[in-house]
Amino acid sequence: MVVEQIAVGTKLMLGTIENTNSQYIAKQCTALGLEMCYQSVVGDVEDRIKESLLIAMQRSDCVIMTGGLGPTEDDITKEVVAKALNRKLIHDESIELKINDFYNKKGKNPAKTYKKQADIIEGATVMFNDNGTAPGMIIEEGEKIIILLPGPPSEMIPMFEGLVKTYLSKKTGCVYVTKVVKLCGISEGEVSELIEGAREKIDNPIVNIYTRPAEVHISITAKADDKKSAEKLIKPIVKELKTKLGMYIYSTDEETTLEQTVVDLLVSNNMTVATIESCTGGLLSGRLINVPGVSDVFKLGHVTYSNKAKRKTLGIKKAFLDKYTAVSEEVAREMCKGSAFFYNPDVMVSVTGYAGPEGGTAEHPVGTVFVGCNVKGNIKVKEFYFTGRREKVRQLAVGNALGFMRQCILEYLSEVTFGNGQ
Amino acid sequence: MVVEQIAVGTKLMLGTIENTNSQYIAKQCTALGLEMCYQSVVGDVEDRIKESLLIAMQRSDCVIMTGGLGPTEDDITKEVVAKALNRKLIHDESIELKINDFYNKKGKNPAKTYKKQADIIEGATVMFNDNGTAPGMIIEEGEKIIILLPGPPSEMIPMFEGLVKTYLSKKTGCVYVTKVVKLCGISEGEVSELIEGAREKIDNPIVNIYTRPAEVHISITAKADDKKSAEKLIKPIVKELKTKLGMYIYSTDEETTLEQTVVDLLVSNNMTVATIESCTGGLLSGRLINVPGVSDVFKLGHVTYSNKAKRKTLGIKKAFLDKYTAVSEEVAREMCKGSAFFYNPDVMVSVTGYAGPEGGTAEHPVGTVFVGCNVKGNIKVKEFYFTGRREKVRQLAVGNALGFMRQCILEYLSEVTFGNGQ
Repeated sequence: MVVEQIAVGTKLMLGTIENTNSQYIAKQCTALGLEMCYQSVVGDVEDRIKESLLIAMQRSDCVIMTGGLGPTEDDITKEVVAKALNRKLIHDESIELKINDFYNKKGKNPAKTYKKQADIIEGATVMFNDNGTAPGMIIEEGEKIIILLPGPPSEMIPMFEGLVKTYLSKKTGCVYVTKVVKLCGISEGEVSELIEGAREKIDNPIVNIYTRPAEVHISITAKADDKKSAEKLIKPIVKELKTKLGMYIYSTDEETTLEQTVVDLLVSNNMTVATIESCTGGLLSGRLINVPGVSDVFKLGHVTYSNKAKRKTLGIKKAFLDKYTAVSEEVAREMCKGSAFFYNPDVMVSVTGYAGPEGGTAEHPVGTVFVGCNVKGNIKVKEFYFTGRREKVRQLAVGNALGFMRQCILEYLSEVTFGNGQ
Repeated sequence: MVVEQIAVGTKLMLGTIENTNSQYIAKQCTALGLEMCYQSVVGDVEDRIKESLLIAMQRSDCVIMTGGLGPTEDDITKEVVAKALNRKLIHDESIELKINDFYNKKGKNPAKTYKKQADIIEGATVMFNDNGTAPGMIIEEGEKIIILLPGPPSEMIPMFEGLVKTYLSKKTGCVYVTKVVKLCGISEGEVSELIEGAREKIDNPIVNIYTRPAEVHISITAKADDKKSAEKLIKPIVKELKTKLGMYIYSTDEETTLEQTVVDLLVSNNMTVATIESCTGGLLSGRLINVPGVSDVFKLGHVTYSNKAKRKTLGIKKAFLDKYTAVSEEVAREMCKGSAFFYNPDVMVSVTGYAGPEGGTAEHPVGTVFVGCNVKGNIKVKEFYFTGRREKVRQLAVGNALGFMRQCILEYLSEVTFGNGQ
């Protein structure tokens, strides 16, 4: 079944609000085995909505429209669809009561024209909105399906997850399943080269590589009659990727973040952790602390941004800082030696670099970042060079610091557990 | 001039990558006074790209296409456009050399089929890509304009900002100018109420309110024959907003962030600052340190996540923590009293809260956050309550902490400078 999506809203057209619905619906339809061929955005203008709908109905089996179902005068999606399909709008008292209830529960005054939200297109299946006032509708017109959904993602998504998904699943014969393999410490180019064979020889599943800050993700999407068969197609690819990419893979679970992986590694090995940050200024600890339950392993972090803070808080000698400068392998090493902690953290990570736009030297230009990682006394330092603006450099520094932490912890553990060099 | 945008890419269609270009182009076109009526997304499929282009050329004066200009076989936008317009592709040696240079500079191996990126549509104006290899093109076909741009935002945006903007500005008669007024410490509802009059009585400029995490932004967009006349229309509205919203406005400059405002305030008043964070875990210092030049005022921050860190590093007594609990007004106050700093920061900010999903008490459920702010010994503590997931609560805590810092510093300064209570 070919699906098409139309997002309605002048604010989208002006660029004042972000259109997140289209990506969400695209992902969901792909997962349901529906082929999405077109998406469009159109303002709250009768002729244009109508034209978009008619074009879509010609070339697609199912048209999903989002937005324009609200109570204000601008909201005309439902009215335009009714007219285009030559159907009446019928006022539904029971829906009006539900809308009233919703306003009362929220303690909000209804919009002047709220009653029109209880007008339903003749013959439509109504989906009541638990998170707002505009109901959704499913309309079958001959062989074609038109689905109307509210625009705010907080209302649209629950409606899609519930009734729309159930409805569409029944309409389709096959499923698509996507598995994501997440990597760190390796570039997109290196990944491409290593897995060239795995990509070229197959049409189904489709293997795609894409980059995330400091990470590379590989998606494997298989089409099959049912979920189990699709998973069966994916399994050997994942196995091959594991053989080829080994330790660079930090997770094969879509929801698991790199910081979650690092925290899990620390928790499962009973290791405490501490951060000592300069250019990243707390963003590394900030990401670690985003993991629920991190309190078992993280007690204290320092943001030693100035040279004086590195001296006074970390006890690094002035002469040492003068000799090597704050952005150097040597200082990154000193920073993670563990002074200024009331406990003895098993893992200490330091970050120092030139995030720009000012600073840097001929030897270490803006974008140079040193990450130190001390795992129970074994200190390693890695030098990175990132391009981009200050914010980007800092984001890449944090991501790569997490990847480097993971690497150092794994290397330490394998030495301990499996003997040296195994 | 009516503009339409077509984003090309199967990855967009599958929902695996986010389509940020459409919003960017919509915003830019609006600012240039161009009317954008339709946007669409289509996969890398010849028939569909062609159909979308032909529909667009029928109803719009200018079609901006992004994506599908890369070196791989999937990238067919240029080829499809050439065919649809009945034009040849002509290989341009000088562009091939530039592409070679780019690969060499980056130390990257060119893709096998990279040479096709030097194929140019007959009669097109070429825009060289400083940030990638695929050149952009502007094609005039009778009265219609087709603009081809690369898909990656890092390549598309500089090309748009440069040559495309200049080209399009010349084509349009009127301009739209947008001014943004940014507020903190006030809710969207309160803003709506305070400025109701300013919004209702006018069509041009249009006043819109939208929310950002911990902030409210008001945009004022005016249409006029030239920039000066548009600005003249905006000026009285901004003046009215300033009268009505006073100190809640932290900036009227689109590029200025809240953290920039806070750092500017510190720098211009020669005040040093330090952070002491618990639930935000370094994200507050991380945002402050994103401001270039912050090193003049920020020396050191602590991430005292555990209770033990609050005791050992900040010297808060165990009995005190037991009595009030770590998430309390009292502990937020103790945290910003300035122990554990080798210097005497003029401003100290503390954050402690329950970010969830676990934790919280009957009195202080998950989402409760206390922010303490000490300006030269004057300590104020504010209690916040946020809903949402852990990440959201922490983000709102950081934004509101910045807003509270600004408020406390301004209040302190006005007491000092203008006398008490003026």
